[in-house]
Amino acid sequence: MKRMITLITDFGAQDEYAGVMKGVILSINRNARIVDITHQIEPQDVVGAAITLNASFRYFPKGSIHVVVVDPGVGTNRNILALSVVGGHFFIAPDNGVLTPVIETEKIEAVIRVENASYFRKPVSRTFHGRDIFAPVAAHLTRGTPLTDLGPSVDLSSLVRLEIQKSYEKTDRELIGTIIWIDRFGNLITNIHEIDVKNFMEKNPRSVVAVILENETIVGLSDSYQGVEDGKPVAVIGSRGYLEVAIRCGNASQYFTSERGDSISVVFRPPVSVGTDFLPPKSGKKRKVV
Amino acid sequence: MKRMITLITDFGAQDEYAGVMKGVILSINRNARIVDITHQIEPQDVVGAAITLNASFRYFPKGSIHVVVVDPGVGTNRNILALSVVGGHFFIAPDNGVLTPVIETEKIEAVIRVENASYFRKPVSRTFHGRDIFAPVAAHLTRGTPLTDLGPSVDLSSLVRLEIQKSYEKTDRELIGTIIWIDRFGNLITNIHEIDVKNFMEKNPRSVVAVILENETIVGLSDSYQGVEDGKPVAVIGSRGYLEVAIRCGNASQYFTSERGDSISVVFRPPVSVGTDFLPPKSGKKRKVV
Amino acid sequence: MKRMITLITDFGAQDEYAGVMKGVILSINRNARIVDITHQIEPQDVVGAAITLNASFRYFPKGSIHVVVVDPGVGTNRNILALSVVGGHFFIAPDNGVLTPVIETEKIEAVIRVENASYFRKPVSRTFHGRDIFAPVAAHLTRGTPLTDLGPSVDLSSLVRLEIQKSYEKTDRELIGTIIWIDRFGNLITNIHEIDVKNFMEKNPRSVVAVILENETIVGLSDSYQGVEDGKPVAVIGSRGYLEVAIRCGNASQYFTSERGDSISVVFRPPVSVGTDFLPPKSGKKRKVV
Repeated sequence: MKRMITLITDFGAQDEYAGVMKGVILSINRNARIVDITHQIEPQDVVGAAITLNASFRYFPKGSIHVVVVDPGVGTNRNILALSVVGGHFFIAPDNGVLTPVIETEKIEAVIRVENASYFRKPVSRTFHGRDIFAPVAAHLTRGTPLTDLGPSVDLSSLVRLEIQKSYEKTDRELIGTIIWIDRFGNLITNIHEIDVKNFMEKNPRSVVAVILENETIVGLSDSYQGVEDGKPVAVIGSRGYLEVAIRCGNASQYFTSERGDSISVVFRPPVSVGTDFLPPKSGKKRKVV
Repeated sequence: MKRMITLITDFGAQDEYAGVMKGVILSINRNARIVDITHQIEPQDVVGAAITLNASFRYFPKGSIHVVVVDPGVGTNRNILALSVVGGHFFIAPDNGVLTPVIETEKIEAVIRVENASYFRKPVSRTFHGRDIFAPVAAHLTRGTPLTDLGPSVDLSSLVRLEIQKSYEKTDRELIGTIIWIDRFGNLITNIHEIDVKNFMEKNPRSVVAVILENETIVGLSDSYQGVEDGKPVAVIGSRGYLEVAIRCGNASQYFTSERGDSISVVFRPPVSVGTDFLPPKSGKKRKVV
Repeated sequence: MKRMITLITDFGAQDEYAGVMKGVILSINRNARIVDITHQIEPQDVVGAAITLNASFRYFPKGSIHVVVVDPGVGTNRNILALSVVGGHFFIAPDNGVLTPVIETEKIEAVIRVENASYFRKPVSRTFHGRDIFAPVAAHLTRGTPLTDLGPSVDLSSLVRLEIQKSYEKTDRELIGTIIWIDRFGNLITNIHEIDVKNFMEKNPRSVVAVILENETIVGLSDSYQGVEDGKPVAVIGSRGYLEVAIRCGNASQYFTSERGDSISVVFRPPVSVGTDFLPPKSGKKRKVV
């Protein structure tokens, strides 16, 4: 059993915080394998951490331990959770909703409230649990400590949840979603899942699909970012399995001046109406939902 | 003996410099374990590197080799030092003061001037000793090369020292220190050590403590960043063991427009004076000391 | 045979993309060693990736697999190449010219068009070949898969090439080159190779050399960045083997407001003309060539 640890934090790159976590891990298990997912979550952006975790953990070997330290409540009485899912993958994170996508998509095996101080670094500070609790607990898991040694089971229903999917409406002819992430390339990533788009298209195979964002309508989905001319907007199903809007060889975030939380729609039209203008978004104003 | 290497540099993330150091290390010892502390020290910020090293090295396993390449004097006749401390930990760094906190807090076992070119990469450039000297020397240490093979012993008293602690005054009722680091969260980290605060409080247990920064007075120390309302300043003993000022769910550096080198005071008042205003800082002007 | 993988991408640090590639690699070979060269190539900057690859790969052990994912053509019918060079080193990259410096300087052993989908992650997306093709193919190479299993050989002459060296002219008394990279320190790195400078100086040992950039003339090459006073420009042969212009303890990019693509000249004068002004650059206007 050779478990690896992944790290998602808002510690940034300038400070020693992520490095110190690694030092603590390696002091407990010199052979631990540690992979950085990112330390560039915006400070205290729990939603961003949840989205990043959801987009990454499945690509790691079963048995990996995914540690999330985006923890505005450090030093308060918020709980720390250790969670395992059926088929592998462990998670250690504050009970602040960051595990919501895991809870909503995976079959949960165990949920533990991390309390057993014998696995903590001493003394435990009130300001850096990443170093004093998350790191040593993860390191002990790589050495085979059973999850149940970390503390008592807690009920799944008691966990804090985010409502990332709340701002998502489906009607017969429309999917109204939200921009939930903007990546380095300026691509606008939504919470509109490819399954919903595909389901509709399968039932209505000759429909025309259009993506409406701000005052612009993008007719048709492309197979890749190169499906349009340079500088033009393109809608694709991105690698995360969600609808994305990009600008070929450009930056959609700058082009649209879009932000996380902005509304975006997918509208389906029967084939007869090809050539008819698609409707503008329901509301002329941007709606912030995240 | 499986020694690991940590890296602190000002190389940033865009260039290949840190990667090249790793290539050189791995060409000498394919099994070397390398951990990045940070490559985001501001260019040539020797003081920042010293603070970062001091805040990180103790969390690594004994026997670790800590390499610091913040080296404005590269290519001049400045020395390169290899240093070991009692109980473990090796250091390789330019003799520019970056090891000052190590020298001042640890029991030094050996100080070597790195001169033995048989452990260098050839030819040695005049501009990239990280690649040509620091990396290969560290790699050879992981393979068990004794420190004394690297060059002659030098006298500890001859080393360049920074005066990070100089700007720190203690009086009966006041500790006057300096902001020595501002982290990603905007937290203001000082050189006022928790020991000094605790010592005073133990002798005067009913005293009231206040932190004075710019024109603001923060009465009382909190246990965590959450000890106040959102958006309010809070003084805590941070995870590095020093007094910090933070803004709950905010950025103290922006709130106070503080910079490294600004003055900060801890004032102790006898309990009778509760309710009395604390004095403003001695000087109305910011003093830059770092 | 323990091969390691290096990564050069334009994925940045905020998203999970580089981490996901590592997850895919480690799911195929848990013992794979992965080293980040950089993920901070500017989005779709193929020339920058080529320069970075050229500046880094030789420092890694023979047998290393260098993966470059700067791939504006992802999802189109551009090819993916796997290439090996005599004496070691493998490369996996899009056929967009990023391997130009490798092709032009190394003896090529094999060039393969990566087509064998049995080594791909399924399903293969149209937007993230780094995850679905580059990462798994590299992982299989670390496990000993022969290069020739990946697809058919292609002719070296058919590969896309960049013309990084095009903007480089040599005359009897002048080398006219280009700033091809600006590093974190603001150092201006040119495509003027030290060999050309040395060759000239060997033939004309008493010549005076001057570097002309914008309206400034730097007389003489220095051995190190410290060869001049603080704040003054200095010309050196940098660690990459090319002429660089730096400002001692400063930032040459800011000092000169130079950009990648700007012209720079090295002018050689016979010794009698010492004291004579060097010519200004041929053109008063900046020429952009990259």
